[in-house]
Amino acid sequence: MAFSPEVEQAIAEVRRDVAALHAELVRYGLVVWTGGNVSGRVPGADLFVIKPSGVPYDALAAEDMILCDLDGNVVAGSPGSHRSPSSDTAAHAYVYRHMPHIGGVVHTHSTYACAWAARNEEIPCVLTAMADEFGGPIPVGPFAIIGDDSIGRGIVETLSGHRSRAVLMANHGPFTIGKDARDAVKAAVMVEDVARSVHVARELGPLVPIPQEAVDRLFDRYQNVYGQSTDTRLASPTE
Amino acid sequence: MAFSPEVEQAIAEVRRDVAALHAELVRYGLVVWTGGNVSGRVPGADLFVIKPSGVPYDALAAEDMILCDLDGNVVAGSPGSHRSPSSDTAAHAYVYRHMPHIGGVVHTHSTYACAWAARNEEIPCVLTAMADEFGGPIPVGPFAIIGDDSIGRGIVETLSGHRSRAVLMANHGPFTIGKDARDAVKAAVMVEDVARSVHVARELGPLVPIPQEAVDRLFDRYQNVYGQSTDTRLASPTE
Amino acid sequence: MAFSPEVEQAIAEVRRDVAALHAELVRYGLVVWTGGNVSGRVPGADLFVIKPSGVPYDALAAEDMILCDLDGNVVAGSPGSHRSPSSDTAAHAYVYRHMPHIGGVVHTHSTYACAWAARNEEIPCVLTAMADEFGGPIPVGPFAIIGDDSIGRGIVETLSGHRSRAVLMANHGPFTIGKDARDAVKAAVMVEDVARSVHVARELGPLVPIPQEAVDRLFDRYQNVYGQSTDTRLASPTE
Amino acid sequence: MAFSPEVEQAIAEVRRDVAALHAELVRYGLVVWTGGNVSGRVPGADLFVIKPSGVPYDALAAEDMILCDLDGNVVAGSPGSHRSPSSDTAAHAYVYRHMPHIGGVVHTHSTYACAWAARNEEIPCVLTAMADEFGGPIPVGPFAIIGDDSIGRGIVETLSGHRSRAVLMANHGPFTIGKDARDAVKAAVMVEDVARSVHVARELGPLVPIPQEAVDRLFDRYQNVYGQSTDTRLASPTE
Repeated sequence: MAFSPEVEQAIAEVRRDVAALHAELVRYGLVVWTGGNVSGRVPGADLFVIKPSGVPYDALAAEDMILCDLDGNVVAGSPGSHRSPSSDTAAHAYVYRHMPHIGGVVHTHSTYACAWAARNEEIPCVLTAMADEFGGPIPVGPFAIIGDDSIGRGIVETLSGHRSRAVLMANHGPFTIGKDARDAVKAAVMVEDVARSVHVARELGPLVPIPQEAVDRLFDRYQNVYGQSTDTRLASPTE
Repeated sequence: MAFSPEVEQAIAEVRRDVAALHAELVRYGLVVWTGGNVSGRVPGADLFVIKPSGVPYDALAAEDMILCDLDGNVVAGSPGSHRSPSSDTAAHAYVYRHMPHIGGVVHTHSTYACAWAARNEEIPCVLTAMADEFGGPIPVGPFAIIGDDSIGRGIVETLSGHRSRAVLMANHGPFTIGKDARDAVKAAVMVEDVARSVHVARELGPLVPIPQEAVDRLFDRYQNVYGQSTDTRLASPTE
Repeated sequence: MAFSPEVEQAIAEVRRDVAALHAELVRYGLVVWTGGNVSGRVPGADLFVIKPSGVPYDALAAEDMILCDLDGNVVAGSPGSHRSPSSDTAAHAYVYRHMPHIGGVVHTHSTYACAWAARNEEIPCVLTAMADEFGGPIPVGPFAIIGDDSIGRGIVETLSGHRSRAVLMANHGPFTIGKDARDAVKAAVMVEDVARSVHVARELGPLVPIPQEAVDRLFDRYQNVYGQSTDTRLASPTE
Repeated sequence: MAFSPEVEQAIAEVRRDVAALHAELVRYGLVVWTGGNVSGRVPGADLFVIKPSGVPYDALAAEDMILCDLDGNVVAGSPGSHRSPSSDTAAHAYVYRHMPHIGGVVHTHSTYACAWAARNEEIPCVLTAMADEFGGPIPVGPFAIIGDDSIGRGIVETLSGHRSRAVLMANHGPFTIGKDARDAVKAAVMVEDVARSVHVARELGPLVPIPQEAVDRLFDRYQNVYGQSTDTRLASPTE
């Protein structure tokens, strides 16, 4: 399969970004062993790039990433195509097919997010950082197991029209989406951070809610005002 | 805008210190992604230096720091002035305007301090290290959201006349102040450390308070006796 | 004692693997000081390789590993034989004698697994990652102290015919087994990971169980479908 | 003050060991900022070596360590003597004066040990590693504040005739002792490790005690059988 020079260039950039972003999962302690995965959509093509299955984080280079079409099939003959893609590829592909504005998907088994998921309980919005980033609570998605489209469908149905870029799939763990792979990684980092802070807070007594009006103002401002560029998600403008 | 050689020299030193001190926030796990910020007043001038908004911690050099006046306006034409300063700049500026003896301000979303903040609950003084460093409990400040002077005012009103150099802003997180940027960073490190230890202690049963007279003696001694210089805060004399 | 060139070659490879795999225990925070140990069976010989007793993790080279026969006796004259083997050598030897399909054994005192062990309580299966990796709950083994075969016997009796590759020895800590040393290390990493996540989950309320039928499907699929090779355990195929 | 060549040699060795051992406090997360201190007795002389007050861990070289007599006075003119010794020097000196068999003392504010100390509660012996290392529960010492001999006296009175090399000083934190500085550092690492594991265990329900007879056998064996040398404490023989 041959692509135009523009698409080849875009693929190369997404490969490089996706490979490098896996290091952020390690840096923030969101993954162990070979668990977790990042993918990124190739702009201008019906393709995305994802991590191979079962390869150590120390050994992830751009050319090891796997190029897939939007049905989750590996593009034959492309670099890395001798390996199997992440076992969660079907879920990523489902998201890309059904959420055209989404350019990145991340999945981890980060500890605190998994803990809320094991109780099938949403994370309440009691910190301004959570209002900024997610605009309210982090929702729980349905229990779904690997083998068909049910994980992807659960992600899409839960997050469509929702402010949150993160969903806690029941008894499984967090999936996050974003404008691009970096934005989805940021959401994965932030969901674990707030999952942990809110968990710790609730261990010692009742939480004080933030008034809805304040949550709305924080989310609106964060999406529209902060950061180094007008596109806040790309610029990762939190401070 | 041109400054005297003495002020230019002072600015250069504060830029270097503030840039370097951000690494301490990373080292002690107080921040994730681009969150958190350190600022330092320029001695002998109505200026302070602060982190830019949304820039990764790996990439913070002295010339990336942003020079502001005490109203929080970026000094036009100075190095870094093409970027936006931290979104918390207005709060830092308010502190510098209203607390002339304060030379450094730090803000983080460190986990355990945020947890107390999410319950709007002060941290009781049950460890001698806390009596040494903060002279009693860590107070909670009002709920205030970004967009006007309310965060800065909340910090100043809570900490004026208080022994503590740290305040837990309700549903938000810790702000710390100090004689200079390094002292404020030390307070940010110590507030998370005691927030965590006291949290863990209370998980398994009632805490034993320290008699007020002992708290007073510890705080007095720590401020006046310890360390390598007579100025205990600059010397960071804890042991 | 002299071995055939093939066996010498196999010994050299296992020495190298076992030495290197100890770094994974450090990386994932499963051990402190000189605690913990990894061993690996030498394919094609009645021998295994294990860590020496009381040597710092920074200083573990392949030639420091100790070669033992299946009764746990050090092979005289082999490299490292001037040192004592790990104090848990008898337990490892017992496993190799009684579980011929097992090629690796790991023991740690990792925090969360030890916590379940101190309550003599199995870890319930409430996360899909746990169903994948262990096929159900992590069982508790008997209370047994060092000095005879009782630890080894407890491991073998608990894990024989069990899906789990990990056992929590009562008031002691986790032992894991695997197809080879790497697989047993992976099980040690994963048992701590799920011990922590399930602990954290239960701190704030009741857990939602996974239906048995789903546990069975996940375990079956993970053992037979995933990964880069048909031998899923060797390939460490989790994602 | 001049010493014999043998004593000068011993001083140089203890300086080097004590400086290097501080890195273990950092490695295991037992200290923040400049907190914590290690000291070591000089064999064959009424002297010990201790960390200076308020100096960052990154910058601790052998020549920065401070030489003191057994009253805690700095030896005039010795390297490092321009600095103040650790603020806990008097407590270390008291231990060396009253426990002649003790060659090392360590103090930290490690999180979980401080948590038990803030409740003035001993750590029960429910893990075999704790029976091995400490021979039973970790005791609590009296509430004592800096400024006279009361901390040193509290340590000595609590640990004299006790199997434990660690004491939790009430509302303060752990002090550990050992045959030499390395052995005391090992005790500081192990006390935090068991403080954490036992804390986590008790969060979710009642602990299962270890029979006293088994505790005794484990402690006896560990002191007399394990390790690479007959002197188990020097050899740090845990596994």
